[in-house]
Formats: sequence, C-alpha cells, structure tokens
Amino acid sequence: MNIVSYRPSPEEYSYTFGGRAAVGKLRPGTILELFTEDCFAGRVKSVDDLPSQVCEFPYLNPVTGPFHVEGAEPGDTLALHFVSITPARDHAWSSTFPLFGALTGTHTTATLQPPLEERVWRYDLDLDRQVARYQARNGDFTVALPMDPMHGTVGVAPAAGEARMTITPDAHGGNMDTTELRAGVTVYLGVNVEGGLFAVGDGHARQGEGEVCGTALECAMNTVVAVELIKGVPTPWPRLEDDDHLMSTGSARPLEDAYRISQHDLVTWTCELTGLDTLDAYQLVSQAGQAPVGNVCDTNYTMVAKVAKRYLGGGGDVYEGAHARLRRLASEYTGP
Amino acid sequence: MNIVSYRPSPEEYSYTFGGRAAVGKLRPGTILELFTEDCFAGRVKSVDDLPSQVCEFPYLNPVTGPFHVEGAEPGDTLALHFVSITPARDHAWSSTFPLFGALTGTHTTATLQPPLEERVWRYDLDLDRQVARYQARNGDFTVALPMDPMHGTVGVAPAAGEARMTITPDAHGGNMDTTELRAGVTVYLGVNVEGGLFAVGDGHARQGEGEVCGTALECAMNTVVAVELIKGVPTPWPRLEDDDHLMSTGSARPLEDAYRISQHDLVTWTCELTGLDTLDAYQLVSQAGQAPVGNVCDTNYTMVAKVAKRYLGGGGDVYEGAHARLRRLASEYTGP
Amino acid sequence: MNIVSYRPSPEEYSYTFGGRAAVGKLRPGTILELFTEDCFAGRVKSVDDLPSQVCEFPYLNPVTGPFHVEGAEPGDTLALHFVSITPARDHAWSSTFPLFGALTGTHTTATLQPPLEERVWRYDLDLDRQVARYQARNGDFTVALPMDPMHGTVGVAPAAGEARMTITPDAHGGNMDTTELRAGVTVYLGVNVEGGLFAVGDGHARQGEGEVCGTALECAMNTVVAVELIKGVPTPWPRLEDDDHLMSTGSARPLEDAYRISQHDLVTWTCELTGLDTLDAYQLVSQAGQAPVGNVCDTNYTMVAKVAKRYLGGGGDVYEGAHARLRRLASEYTGP
Amino acid sequence: MNIVSYRPSPEEYSYTFGGRAAVGKLRPGTILELFTEDCFAGRVKSVDDLPSQVCEFPYLNPVTGPFHVEGAEPGDTLALHFVSITPARDHAWSSTFPLFGALTGTHTTATLQPPLEERVWRYDLDLDRQVARYQARNGDFTVALPMDPMHGTVGVAPAAGEARMTITPDAHGGNMDTTELRAGVTVYLGVNVEGGLFAVGDGHARQGEGEVCGTALECAMNTVVAVELIKGVPTPWPRLEDDDHLMSTGSARPLEDAYRISQHDLVTWTCELTGLDTLDAYQLVSQAGQAPVGNVCDTNYTMVAKVAKRYLGGGGDVYEGAHARLRRLASEYTGP
Repeated sequence: MNIVSYRPSPEEYSYTFGGRAAVGKLRPGTILELFTEDCFAGRVKSVDDLPSQVCEFPYLNPVTGPFHVEGAEPGDTLALHFVSITPARDHAWSSTFPLFGALTGTHTTATLQPPLEERVWRYDLDLDRQVARYQARNGDFTVALPMDPMHGTVGVAPAAGEARMTITPDAHGGNMDTTELRAGVTVYLGVNVEGGLFAVGDGHARQGEGEVCGTALECAMNTVVAVELIKGVPTPWPRLEDDDHLMSTGSARPLEDAYRISQHDLVTWTCELTGLDTLDAYQLVSQAGQAPVGNVCDTNYTMVAKVAKRYLGGGGDVYEGAHARLRRLASEYTGP
Repeated sequence: MNIVSYRPSPEEYSYTFGGRAAVGKLRPGTILELFTEDCFAGRVKSVDDLPSQVCEFPYLNPVTGPFHVEGAEPGDTLALHFVSITPARDHAWSSTFPLFGALTGTHTTATLQPPLEERVWRYDLDLDRQVARYQARNGDFTVALPMDPMHGTVGVAPAAGEARMTITPDAHGGNMDTTELRAGVTVYLGVNVEGGLFAVGDGHARQGEGEVCGTALECAMNTVVAVELIKGVPTPWPRLEDDDHLMSTGSARPLEDAYRISQHDLVTWTCELTGLDTLDAYQLVSQAGQAPVGNVCDTNYTMVAKVAKRYLGGGGDVYEGAHARLRRLASEYTGP
Repeated sequence: MNIVSYRPSPEEYSYTFGGRAAVGKLRPGTILELFTEDCFAGRVKSVDDLPSQVCEFPYLNPVTGPFHVEGAEPGDTLALHFVSITPARDHAWSSTFPLFGALTGTHTTATLQPPLEERVWRYDLDLDRQVARYQARNGDFTVALPMDPMHGTVGVAPAAGEARMTITPDAHGGNMDTTELRAGVTVYLGVNVEGGLFAVGDGHARQGEGEVCGTALECAMNTVVAVELIKGVPTPWPRLEDDDHLMSTGSARPLEDAYRISQHDLVTWTCELTGLDTLDAYQLVSQAGQAPVGNVCDTNYTMVAKVAKRYLGGGGDVYEGAHARLRRLASEYTGP
Repeated sequence: MNIVSYRPSPEEYSYTFGGRAAVGKLRPGTILELFTEDCFAGRVKSVDDLPSQVCEFPYLNPVTGPFHVEGAEPGDTLALHFVSITPARDHAWSSTFPLFGALTGTHTTATLQPPLEERVWRYDLDLDRQVARYQARNGDFTVALPMDPMHGTVGVAPAAGEARMTITPDAHGGNMDTTELRAGVTVYLGVNVEGGLFAVGDGHARQGEGEVCGTALECAMNTVVAVELIKGVPTPWPRLEDDDHLMSTGSARPLEDAYRISQHDLVTWTCELTGLDTLDAYQLVSQAGQAPVGNVCDTNYTMVAKVAKRYLGGGGDVYEGAHARLRRLASEYTGP
C-alpha cells in the first residue's frame, strides 16, 4: 500500500484552482493523508475574531494541494475516495460575513441596505459522541447537533487555462458545499490539464442544506483520500458515488440552472448506464431522483441530482467499478 | 365526530384558487373525505392519449373544493391534517408535455428549439406492496419504485382579490409539488378571505424531487383531511408540520428566491418559537436545517425549509398544538 | 366621432385585472377621455405622507376601468392608441417603499436586513416647459429633468379565469412600467374574455429605465385613448407600435426570461411579417434590435424587444394598419 | 506624442484575462494602434465554415494583449480612450452556435432538446457609407443596417490570482458586449495586478442590444486606444464615459443582478460626485437613469447604468478629467 502524508506549511496553501504548481506527485492507487485548514485560514480563534478583520482577501478558503496524479491527461477522470474526514480540533467556528450568505444583499445581489451584523459562533465538538454544540451568542439557548463531517471544497485545475478562486464552484469542482461529500463517498472529477492537479479543503463538522448564512461548522480536518485514475473516460461535471447512489452536480446561477445541469447530467448518464433513450431516462430520473441542495450562498450555487443504483437495473456499475475497488483499498488501510 | 364526504361531479372541479364560490361549508373539527381527480382531469386513459390533445386548457390540474370553513377570517390560519392519501385507481400516468418541465424551453424560458417529444408512461400501482412499476416506452427496462402518495396542490383563496390558476404556487399555497405533503402531515395556510376557501388536488403516487419532467405519477386519490381553524394567528406562507419537523415553504422565481422565502420564514418562525434573536436563529437554521426541493417546473418554483423540532428546545409546539390534536382526532377516525 | 369621457369616483377604481365587472361599454372606434389616479391612490399629499402609512394594501395602483369593448372575444386583439397623456396636477410624487425596489431585499428576495428608509420626494411639474424638478430631501441639490409622460399600467382581463393585482405585469399586460408607453403609441392586447375588459393607470411624468427605486414621478393623468378592435387576430403578449418601430414585451422572473419572451415574440412576429425563416429572423433581430428595459422592481420584471419598421422590408404593416388608422382618428380629435 | 503599433502574430493572441505574460509595456499617455482578430479567430471565411467545426475550443474570442502599463498598481485605474474602431476587412461574419445564445438551451440552461441549426451569415461592409448588408440565407430578403463599430471585449487581469476565459465578463471587464463601447468613449478599469495587463478584442461592426443569437457582426478591427493611468483611485466595476454620459457596468447571472450591480455602482458614484446622500442619489438615478442592455448570451450577462452628466450638477467631472484630457490627446493624433 502506497501511503503519502502531507501537512502544508502556512505558505503552501492554495487559493485558486489552476494557476498553481503541484505541491506533490502521486501515483494512482495512493492513499493520501491530508491536513486541511478551515475556511478562515485558521485565523478565527475566538468569537471576537471577526472574519472581515482577521482574514485577508483573497486568502480565504485555503485548499491543500494541488496534487499531480501521474498519467492523468485531459479526457481522463480522477476518482477521489474519501476514506475518512476527522475534525483536527475540538471545536469549529461559524460566522456571518458582511455581504455574504443567502439572506442578505451581496456584492452581486447588490442592495443599498447596510450589511447584517457580523457575528461568530464557537461550536464545541465531541468526537466520541459525534455531536457539535450550538450555543446562542445572545442568551442561554443551546442544543447538540449530530456531527456529519464533510469537505465543502474539492476540485481540479479548470479547463481553458482558467484559474478560479477556491470559493467558486463550477465544472472543475471547487466550493460545492454539498453535505453529500462525506466519508465513504467517491468523487469523480474530469481532468483538464496534465496531472489533474486536485486539491481539497473547507472541512465542515456539519452543514445545513444550502449553507444559508454562508458558513458551516468550519474546522480543520485530518482527511484520508484514496486516489485512482480512470483513463480515457471524461466527466463533464463532478459526480459522486456512495454505496447506494450515483450523483451528478451542477453549479451555476440562477439556482434553477444548477438544478438543470445536475439533472441533465444524471439523465444522460442514466441513458449510458441503462440503454434507455433520452425520454425514458428523463422519466425515470424524474420519478426516482432526489435533488439535495448544495450551497445557495457562494459565487455559484450548487445542486446535486441523486438516484439509487438499485433503480438503474444492472446499470449502477460505473467508472469501471472504481468505487468498490477504492472501498476495498480503504478497508485495508489501518490509519495514520 | 363530524365526517363529511365529497366526491365532485365533473363540472364541480375548480381550476383556480379564488374567484369561485364554495362547494360546501365545514365546521372546524370536521373530517373531510375527498375524491380528487388527477392533473390530466382524468382524460389520459392510455399511453396514446397525449395530454396536449386530450386535455383542454385551462382545464388542467382540477382541485376539489373550495370549502368554506365556518368562522375563518383574514388573519386566521387553516390547519389541514392529511389523515390518509390513497390512490383511487390501480395505475397512474406520467408524461412529458410540450414546453413544460425543467429540461426544456418553456413559454417563459422561451427558446426557438422545437419542443421535446410528448410521451406518456403508465405506472401500475400495487397498493398492497406500495410499489409503482416504471416501464420504459422504448425497450424492456422496468423497475419497481416505492409509492409515497402525496398531494401536489393545496391552497386557499389568495389575498388582494386575486384568482390564480391551480398550477401556480404562491403565498396562498397552490401547486407546490413537494413530496413533504404526505399523510401524517399538517398544512397551515393563512386565511385571506372569509371562509378561507381551501381546495386540494393533484395526487401523486410518487414524485422525484423537483418533478423535473413536469409531471409525477399522477393519480386520482381518496383522501381524508381533518380540518381545524386557528383564530387570530396569521401565516405568511404555507407551513407544514409532521411529527418530528417544522417546515416553511417559498414559491417564486428564480429558484433562489423560493429558497430565500422559505429560509427567511423558518428563521423568523424560529425566533418566535425559541426567543433567539435574528442572528442566532439564522445561525441555528443554517446548521440544523434541511432544504427539500419542491418543484422546479411550475410557473413558480417551490422550496421547503425544514428543521427538526428537537433542535428548537421546547420551541417546537406551534399553532396551539394543532398537529397533535389533529393526530388524535385522526386516530379516532376509522375510515370510510 | 364617438367620444366618451370617464372620471371614476373613488370607489370605482379597480385593483385587479380580471374579477371585476366593466365600468362601461365602448364601441370600437371610440375616443375615450380618462382620468387616472396615481399609484398611491392620491393619498400622498406631502413629503411627510409615507406610503406605507397613508396607503392601505391592497388599494395600491388603482386603474381606471375595466371597459368592455363591444364584440371583443377571445382570439381578438384590442388596439389602444394613446392620443395624449397629460399630468392632471402640477406636481408628482416619488418614494422608496419598504421592501420594494431593485436595490433592496423584498418579500421575494427575502433578506434579514432592515428595510431601507422610506422617503418621499415631490416633483414640481412645469407643463409648459415640460420639465420636472428634482429636489434632494437632504441638501440643496436640484435639477430639472425633461418630462416624458407615460402609463405604467395597461392591460386586459387575464386568461384562464385569473384575476391579478394591478401591480403585476404578465401576458395580459398590467404594470409593465415601460417608458415606451407614451403618447403616439398603439398598444395591442390579446383578448381573453368577452369584451376584453381593459383598464389604464399608473401615470408617470417621467421614469428611469427599470424604475430602480420602485416608483417613478407618479401623477394623476388626463389621458385620451382611441380604441379599436382587430377581429380574429390573437396577440400572445402585449405589443406596441409607434410610427417607426414595432415592439414586443415579456414580463417574468428572472429578468433574462422577460428578455427571452420579448425577443422570442419579436423573432416569430418578424417571421410572419417578412417571410423569413426562424433562423434568418433570429439573425436579423439579433443585429437590428433594441431591448429597452421596462421594470426591474415589480412582481414580474418587464423587457421590451424593439425593431425599426424600416428594417423589415415591406413587413412593417401590422394589425391591418390599425396604428395608421388610429393616428388619423386621433388627428381629427380636437380635445376635451 | 508616444505612439505604439502592435499587430499580433497568430500565436500571440490571448484567450484569458490573467495567467498570461504581457506582450508589451506602455507608458501612460501612449497612443496604441492595435489590430484585433474577430471572435472566430479569423477561421470563418465562408458561410460554409461552421464555427463549431473550424474553431477549436478554447481558442475562441482572441484578445490582443495583455499590455503592461508602467506604474499601474492594485488600487489604481486604467483609462482606455477608444480613439477609433475601424473594420479591418470589407465584411463581417455572424452565426448561431450550438448551445449558445439567449433563445436556446445552453450548457448552463441545460435542456434535452437538440440544439438549433448552426448557420453563418456574411455581411458586406461599406465603410464609406457606414452600412452593413444583411442577406437572408434562405430567400432573397436583404436590408442595409447602419454600422456602429464597437469592441465586445476589454479588460484587465482579474483580482485574487484568477484567470478567466475572454468570453466571460466580470468585475475585471471581459466580454461585456455593450454597444456603448464605441469610438469616443473612455473605459475605466480597476487595476488588480502590477501593470494592469489590459487587452482588447471582439470587434463588432454592429450589434443588437443583448446580442440575442450570441454573435454580432464579428470583424477584425484596426483600433486606436489612448492609455492613461489614474493613480490611487480604485474602480470596482468597469465604467464608461462619453462626452455626455457616465456609465457603470455589472456582469452577473441572473440578469437582474447585473442590473443591480450596475445601478448600485451608479448610485454610489453619484453620491461621491454630487454629495447627495444614498437615498437622494438612489432617487435621482431612478428617474434620470438609463439601462442599456449589454449581453444576455454570455457566461455572465451585462447591464449598463447610464446617466447624463448634465443631471449631476457640477458633479460630472470624474477621474481627474481623464476623458477630456484623452479627447484632446486623441484630437492631436493624425492616424496611422
């Protein structure tokens, strides 16, 4: 088993997908042990650390990477199986942020009202019981929420020579902020440049659907990823697979276009997998499908289109069985 | 127990919310047994019955009602508890429809491409096993999908003297097409006119999230609704309650505005229920909330904002305990 | 010449299109002299009269009418030629309004920020010089703006038994708020119900494109309309004609759909008028067309697609020459 | 007078803003004579050259540059005055393009319908009479349209280390496709990186508002730009100035957000220029402003907010009088 560990020094984080040299080279089949910093670059250390003051644009949402996968070329697909996602600290931070979030005017949905108050919340994490404690800032209200660790951001270098801020999700992945990206899931990303150049960041101990205030339970993560390369198979938009489901994503504005992209990809993928014609696949996905909301706060919004493999007949075996193979590889990994 | 049964004759269906006299008067506390016709007004009877040919605009999406609830006045809330929703036939119909659905140009998202093919699918319903059978039109592919009966359309007469086609969801309810509206759920609707004038229709044996092709497993329903009236409590947008969750809805375009409306209502409702200030409630809903997609195909799109009552402290008791009371009333009902 | 004068008493105004009996019957060919009240129902009489306090929902945006046109049936088109639009007072009012306008959160684009300040501006109108004077509320800044009187609202009873608040523009017309609707222009409206039931209101002494703050220079108007009926010619969305241009409108959300509707209608109309095929007409409109913004503040947004008749070859003669005929009729009218 | 001429060799064009070394260094005050290729990279040479076949993604929409302006640093503004824009050939090309344009499903507004036909139109340009001839592909219809040469694309390297395809407009400029960017106009672009790194391309002999089919009268241009640097004055979004008007731009999706950005910038700019408070400026822009549509077909849509300088009191003198100064410099330039 080929295991690589990587913990970036502060200056090694990336803030774009694309436009950045690889921090390391990996062979397909590698198990990668990563540390990822939180979206605040670790600078929020108390509820008095307002992000707009302690963080420095554009040094937001750092990602760990990019990693060059040997042999990856445009037209291939990277398969990243998330073996484990473990909070690296005993607490997480959340906040409002001026002109960011779904229920406020933003730089894009520009209004003349003053921004909402900027406020920070600390969540204590109980890793044994897997709960995070919400504590109101104004009053005594408190409640325990189940942890459900995930990564908001994973992606590769974009096509067409672009470099995009890590906060933006698009066809290359990026800041999709979907709760579906948890341990046990394989993410498929189409390769646009030699080596693929994938990176991972923005760990959340938990997130509500849509990440409505703009941030989740932001925390540094110790994450293990098993990396595979599928040669000669392109992937138009990031796709996810868990043991029971296939998922397509779409990231765009307005939100219905994110929905359209994700459903369109799931319909056309279903055609390939089942042999159904377009209309029959459209009908099947329409009745069998789910549509978990990713984010409704970032520079593009993200929707996921999801279908149970059992509804696809024998059609649920995708990417040459990469998910099952990576599951087996992960099961042999005994941890750091 | 006051039980009223109503099965409309063909000319008694309504095609608008508002602009129509009541078909009957009910006292609060009534159990109402209803028959609802499918969205095709029952005219699709084979896969060769194309809706655009056998249906006649605007006689689409008939609803049963409206019912006048005695004592209901503007500023009150109707509580409609769905005791049971049972397919009235052993099959359901679905179809594409020219210029309708999420993955086609429409009359609003107007394009110059020819419309998609219009195609009808028949689903056989096995009420004992609660499964519906998908059968491809082009090929042998078939799969059983679990039934999950629901109503796409429920609403009251709108405010401001408006009358709206039943196909349109808005603040008065209407064609929200959310899978959350199943048996066991209480729907709260703000009263805009004397009597409230609610109506119900558009039964689905099952629906995917977003109803992407524009129709679900459309079927006539035998439905039982327990009706309550909450005096002096207004409701800005339709809300739902099941045993474990509170839900707000929003219906608008673009889809992010439906999301904003529903999340905004859930945040402000959470403030009322918990005593949290706005920012603290925003944070709690952001991390604890879900956002099930209703429809992304109708003339307005619908999103649901949902939170588990257990995350609201003691704050989950709403509308004077109407849901629990209606649950009890329903449990005493022994059926038609 | 058949001339009818109508000045509504306060209780005779309408607040919906549809759902209201006619206030009068007109024969085609009639010249109609109307008084229309301002969008505040005349209740704002000083800069201290805040609309949210002095106006009463839903009694906003009163329209004068509806008028029944004899012989008008579904499938016909009403042609309303605006002979003159003259401010009825020597001043106009404008205001911000809580949660209304393009640069604020609204009930639909729901945010948690407090609303913008509500403020009222008075414009003195100099009818001789045709200028309106802007005067800052906070400071001495003042400037004269040219008057360009228009009606924000004109429409007929909607299809499908609907009734819509006068503030909403849609396929039946309504509150389009386009600066193109000035004297000298003919508006074409498809008839949905017997008599058509048209109404007119919401006079503006002047308006910026998009009506960004939500109101224009709102004023009561003395308006003269020449009314024609085109039998057997349907009109899908309101169209306008001036001496030199043809215009289609679209009203929807998001704004690109209003654009799409208006451009789609202009392309298909161009096909009819020129004999060009769809692609050739699409190309011609793409290069020759204009796209004046109507409103970006109402419950639907409005865009206009506009093309000079001279670019359509001999194809600019529409609706059986109604515009020219109404121009001649207007020229014979010597005023009240 | 410092005059620089630059005609790129085929491999010197850029296809991104950002991520590319400068092709040359300029001192402020330079007059720059440029050749720009058309958006098809010059590969469409007959109506049988379908862009999807003869062009090669991502080598679309080439720009000439980027140019490094000496002394330009983040926080400064580049002023680019377009002295002249002259078609370099006697013809222009337009086309539909599969899944591109406002009246078709796209990769983002993803539909299952087949794409529209791809068709190419040739326009003969008469530079003396300044007219372009439309000729239907299917039939004899032909019409002369006035030329109004402009550049669809101008921009600088984006902030935050991003590189964006030239087809995308955003805060750095890019493919705004506004008809306002014609000769006689000064464009102000905020500097994000040392040297600014501006580039220019996508000449149009003429364009309809919104560029509805996705392309205009695409032609190579000989263009003269006078370059100035305004130190210490930032510019949030591209702004334009002609002799009589100030303009702000916004580029985003949905289209109302492009409108909001542009109007918000014009309101806040008006505050600075006039001393009006926010509400008074909002009111003035609401009544005095125009809103020319840029594009409704690109990856972001563009709107322009425009106000006549004469309505701003003495407030129309901006950027230290750069426009007037560049106008004078241009008047001294006697041409290549």
